[in-house]
Amino acid sequence: MIEIVAVGGMPEIRPGDEIAALVCERADLRHHDVVVVTQKIVSKAEGRVEELTGDDEDARRELVERESVRVLRRRDELIISETRHGFVCANAGVDLSNMPPGQAAVLPLDPDRSARRIRDGIRARGGVDTGVIVSDSFGRAWRRGVTDVAIGCAGIAAIVDLRGTRDAGGRVLEATEVAIADQLAGAAELAMGKAGGVPVAIVRGVDDGWFRESSVRAEIVRPPAEDLFR
Amino acid sequence: MIEIVAVGGMPEIRPGDEIAALVCERADLRHHDVVVVTQKIVSKAEGRVEELTGDDEDARRELVERESVRVLRRRDELIISETRHGFVCANAGVDLSNMPPGQAAVLPLDPDRSARRIRDGIRARGGVDTGVIVSDSFGRAWRRGVTDVAIGCAGIAAIVDLRGTRDAGGRVLEATEVAIADQLAGAAELAMGKAGGVPVAIVRGVDDGWFRESSVRAEIVRPPAEDLFR
Repeated sequence: MIEIVAVGGMPEIRPGDEIAALVCERADLRHHDVVVVTQKIVSKAEGRVEELTGDDEDARRELVERESVRVLRRRDELIISETRHGFVCANAGVDLSNMPPGQAAVLPLDPDRSARRIRDGIRARGGVDTGVIVSDSFGRAWRRGVTDVAIGCAGIAAIVDLRGTRDAGGRVLEATEVAIADQLAGAAELAMGKAGGVPVAIVRGVDDGWFRESSVRAEIVRPPAEDLFR
Repeated sequence: MIEIVAVGGMPEIRPGDEIAALVCERADLRHHDVVVVTQKIVSKAEGRVEELTGDDEDARRELVERESVRVLRRRDELIISETRHGFVCANAGVDLSNMPPGQAAVLPLDPDRSARRIRDGIRARGGVDTGVIVSDSFGRAWRRGVTDVAIGCAGIAAIVDLRGTRDAGGRVLEATEVAIADQLAGAAELAMGKAGGVPVAIVRGVDDGWFRESSVRAEIVRPPAEDLFR
């Protein structure tokens, strides 16, 4: 069985806050739990907040372009662009919701490193080996609605590679690299959303074989050269 | 808390099998459980299996083109196309894994109807109102790896629409139509994968407010006219 629990009572996060400590104080973490933390609080803790000066909309657009390395599409207010990390998402991850007026959260500089830092902090304080995922809500091509995906991870596989294994009929399986970290981020969001926008959730009971060193950037981000849609 | 449990002991599915009955015999379903069923067994139960004659690879390619209304990209063996349902996926959902040699499973004609039929069957046999999702593994633009998404649903929201609601700071939230059904499908796959490819899982503890009549086709499939990537 897999269980997903939202971690309640997290305070408003400020620059310099140690998320690992705040989670350990509020959750009884166990070996091989996966701790999913939203990008928003990671960005706040890391001081990845930008001031918007002048007209809100113009300032936001400028910030989105600064956070982008390539714009893929524009429609009205919406910009779909590629970030320095290689993520393709709306508005380069620039986020004004739940921010004070005149401020915007931007993505962590290296979300895999953010995840490692939280994982190491949990190990040091709680004495348990966990997986950590930093999640964000991204839209998709072809399908409406956002889902939470992993923008960084540590200690848990980003992708579980079943390529080349044989199915029950002896046939070699096709296209079975499963993006476990994205499914974990989406699963965590079900509990976060139910609890009313809580920024941390724990997924317990994940397959022990999926815990290993890993990185969203190395495993999930598709290089433009192998991407059919860039 | 949200719990996800794989339903073990499902038999090999044959045309005409009633999935609702097979699930009710093996799981103690409760009010507002979400039952996630893989496309593969739904297709088998509905007889959506095609014979491949002649050279396996040529026959497969012909079948993929027959199941497509529009080809978006080709690379080597891979065809990314749009199906009659409006899904954009690899090989139009044609699936040879875990099938007898010379046979391929194709997508259900109307996966929302498939989900409704299973939901109605569970209500009739088990006396409980559940949500039902038919899931399949789709690749994504820009990100490696497949995730399970909903190709049909009944009794549970495909999208929870938070557009226009205000966040804690009074700011109108942007881009917060959440594709709940896709996150539920991905969450279920974590338990299915852990259990070794079990084709049914139950998600328990989902927000009661998310249970309503719904449809993947109406809510999640993005019409080409509003799609920036077709």
